[in-house]
Amino acid sequence: MAKTAISPTRSENYPEWYQQVVKAADLAENSDVRGCMVIKPWGYALWENIQRRLDTRFKETGHDNAYFPLFIPMSFLEKEAEHVEGFAKECAVVTHHRLEPNGKGGLQPAPSAKLEEPLIVRPTSETIIGATFARWVQSYRDLPILINQWANVVRWELRTRMFLRTAEFLWQEGHTVHATAEEAQEETRKMLDVYAEFAEGAMAMPVIKGEKTAGERFPGAAATYSIEAMMQDRKALQAGTSHFLGQNFAKAQEIKFQNQAGEFQYAWTTSWGVSTRLVGGLIMSHADDDGLICPPKLAPAHAVILPIFKNDEERAAVLPYCESLKNELSTQEYDGEKLRVRIDTRDLRGGEKKWQWVKRGVPLRVEVGPRDVASASVFAASRLMEKGVGVERAKFVADAPKMLGELQQQLFDRAKRARDEASVVIDTLADFEAFFAEGQPGGLAYAHFTDGPEMEAKCKALKVTPRCVPLEPLLGDDGAGECLFTGGRSERRAVFARAY
Amino acid sequence: MAKTAISPTRSENYPEWYQQVVKAADLAENSDVRGCMVIKPWGYALWENIQRRLDTRFKETGHDNAYFPLFIPMSFLEKEAEHVEGFAKECAVVTHHRLEPNGKGGLQPAPSAKLEEPLIVRPTSETIIGATFARWVQSYRDLPILINQWANVVRWELRTRMFLRTAEFLWQEGHTVHATAEEAQEETRKMLDVYAEFAEGAMAMPVIKGEKTAGERFPGAAATYSIEAMMQDRKALQAGTSHFLGQNFAKAQEIKFQNQAGEFQYAWTTSWGVSTRLVGGLIMSHADDDGLICPPKLAPAHAVILPIFKNDEERAAVLPYCESLKNELSTQEYDGEKLRVRIDTRDLRGGEKKWQWVKRGVPLRVEVGPRDVASASVFAASRLMEKGVGVERAKFVADAPKMLGELQQQLFDRAKRARDEASVVIDTLADFEAFFAEGQPGGLAYAHFTDGPEMEAKCKALKVTPRCVPLEPLLGDDGAGECLFTGGRSERRAVFARAY
Ligand SMILES: [Zn+2]
Ligand SMILES: [Zn+2]
Repeated sequence: MAKTAISPTRSENYPEWYQQVVKAADLAENSDVRGCMVIKPWGYALWENIQRRLDTRFKETGHDNAYFPLFIPMSFLEKEAEHVEGFAKECAVVTHHRLEPNGKGGLQPAPSAKLEEPLIVRPTSETIIGATFARWVQSYRDLPILINQWANVVRWELRTRMFLRTAEFLWQEGHTVHATAEEAQEETRKMLDVYAEFAEGAMAMPVIKGEKTAGERFPGAAATYSIEAMMQDRKALQAGTSHFLGQNFAKAQEIKFQNQAGEFQYAWTTSWGVSTRLVGGLIMSHADDDGLICPPKLAPAHAVILPIFKNDEERAAVLPYCESLKNELSTQEYDGEKLRVRIDTRDLRGGEKKWQWVKRGVPLRVEVGPRDVASASVFAASRLMEKGVGVERAKFVADAPKMLGELQQQLFDRAKRARDEASVVIDTLADFEAFFAEGQPGGLAYAHFTDGPEMEAKCKALKVTPRCVPLEPLLGDDGAGECLFTGGRSERRAVFARAY
Repeated sequence: MAKTAISPTRSENYPEWYQQVVKAADLAENSDVRGCMVIKPWGYALWENIQRRLDTRFKETGHDNAYFPLFIPMSFLEKEAEHVEGFAKECAVVTHHRLEPNGKGGLQPAPSAKLEEPLIVRPTSETIIGATFARWVQSYRDLPILINQWANVVRWELRTRMFLRTAEFLWQEGHTVHATAEEAQEETRKMLDVYAEFAEGAMAMPVIKGEKTAGERFPGAAATYSIEAMMQDRKALQAGTSHFLGQNFAKAQEIKFQNQAGEFQYAWTTSWGVSTRLVGGLIMSHADDDGLICPPKLAPAHAVILPIFKNDEERAAVLPYCESLKNELSTQEYDGEKLRVRIDTRDLRGGEKKWQWVKRGVPLRVEVGPRDVASASVFAASRLMEKGVGVERAKFVADAPKMLGELQQQLFDRAKRARDEASVVIDTLADFEAFFAEGQPGGLAYAHFTDGPEMEAKCKALKVTPRCVPLEPLLGDDGAGECLFTGGRSERRAVFARAY
């Protein structure tokens, strides 16, 4: 069996494989602060590409970016009990505003600088943004308010995993205010669509759009929608959420406006977000036992050129050829952007260098040696090709965008095939238990249900959760049926899975 | 006298004028958290444009973005005494990681969740990034490391002022590691140049590049360089800094590498940063008694179109004309970017609407009424024109980029003229004292000096600081001279001023 670049492999130890891919692809590393990661340049460039595309879509859909404080006064979290239950428990609490020498050569929080009211490092910003919106909204003329924030947030997690669950993470949070419930609901669904299109179109990660059951709803939300993806270990990943908050937050935060009839009424709000967790989803959707595979639309580099030479004479022939190849490639366009091309001239053995780029998942790898120069060709491979092939240089330059497009499609198709193969329609509790029994591969189970304690207890026992009730029927579209857990009538199937 | 849109005017009360411009231009507002501001969409869009341009330059000069933790363990600040003195005193200290009910219907930091080691919200990231770099650097082959981070930082300030001095602010911090002192020095100066080119080229804000005196140096730095601008009240604003850190941080953080001879040695590091303070500098460079004036290169919108109509019939003629005008304008380019054009169709009185855009400082304002439609013309004004003029529509579309370029240049010229008029060469202590005497307008004084306690005491008494020793002679380039404060020999003049 061929040796793999990542050890252990997915089948040997999936969680450890994941950590090794993150490391081998130079995406991130644990920092000196418990639960916080350092996002390294290759990982951050992926995030920047995610940001840029989403930001463009947010602006196209009428949203403006703004920035709100990192800190939330503790009293803001006290105001809304349900919200406190959900978010405020594990968080970073700022209690002092000064350090002073502790008399033993070290430092201590200065007792004289204790804050009258502790500040919480934002776990999410509904409360502070809501308080601001309450000042901004007076009249129906001020509506809608369509705001997005790119920010860092902190949730004190006990068990962390790079990108998937970290104490500090980067995200965007959209917050909007509307005059009517209908408009707010429309916004909630519109942004869910933006997320789904991004996940499938740019990340090549197929997702299910659906509504969360009551137990999985965002605290305080009237309805929570999510996009759910399936990772290669058949566990689900919630990749983005969009919340219709009804008037719950508006009432807690006094977001009121005067309507055209001159009457005061509470507004309707939404919030929606995706985070650096998407990078985790991207890894677990596409990486293989040789490391990361970047979907071309998000790849920090579309292609890397690896010059190969043994002496100065060869170097003098190969390097200029590589430079001009890079320049030619960089004039080509893929997906509306110029090709991002790098040359790796580092003083490393060719094999080591090549494998570094395989592990980082660069879509196209081009090796150029003296013989390629002589024959005006290149030795090129896409990340999904077993081996590279010699190809005429001009042809490669012309074909590169097409190769990227094919790779993007291959990744989506492969991920969708894996998901579809792991998706089943289940109609009895016995089958449900068998599907999620220990030692079984599991996957996505489409089953009729009643949202209530019987379902929740059974799911808990099986370590499964209802991921969502799909908005568009995907599997088992047979109308109403019988709830697996209560025997009662069920109108819709939910998708059940183990989840990250 | 004409009524101004901003009250008070600059001459009546400059600090209050500043706050009113920030408010009237919809740039930012105070938040519910002491010392932290909410950056509103118009202000944030300015910052995004600043970011985008700088980020492009950072990447062109070989830097990669990355992200490091928000928190710094207290012990990291203890390690380097000098650094602690300078930065760690007033900061946000996280001491607990959980809230719990306080038994009185509220919340409290949970005593059981007290952190063993307090965490500091980063005031700057030298220590945590340095600890990371120590892991990344092993060999000369790993150098240089050229990293930038876009982030929020917190410094607990007692007296805050939006954009100029806030507890939380947004910035970028470059951090680099080099094998030699020369390379690190070159990097320090290169990034200072990037800042200066940006300030003058994009912000239209003339700056002086110079080196800080010892007392004004970044704690722990071997040399600190800055760009200094003069505001309309003749006070200086430090708009960006670039630090040559020597081996000081490398020694504290054990950033060592094996050189080509196989010997271990300490590396040389730099750091450099600009922040949302630049927005404050932009305001105080260009705004007038009618509000903000956006330099076209950074303006969130280059032009706003204001449709004017009295009834549905006029509306039906005017709006499509405005839409097609917007589309035409948006195909024009200024400074390598498509024109950013908005139509303001809000249901507001024409005068109110127009003045909102004046106060926000949009470079070009275009009013379109039924008569303009009939005559295929527009009524257009740049933000620096007293009144608008009727102009043929096609001509306006063709000329818009040129008008923006002229406005950009006018702003720079005007700011430079104001600075030059307030710059003097001073050769006696008596003149120095008279220049900075209470009731005098002050400005920038170029004077010979010796870096030491006599100068510092005198400056302190006059509430003046040495801003920098200019790298390129600007005024008073008369070689060596006599220090105003000690009578000793002085090789160079420094620029002295009151400062923000
Ligand atoms: Zn919250
Ligand atoms: Zn520091």
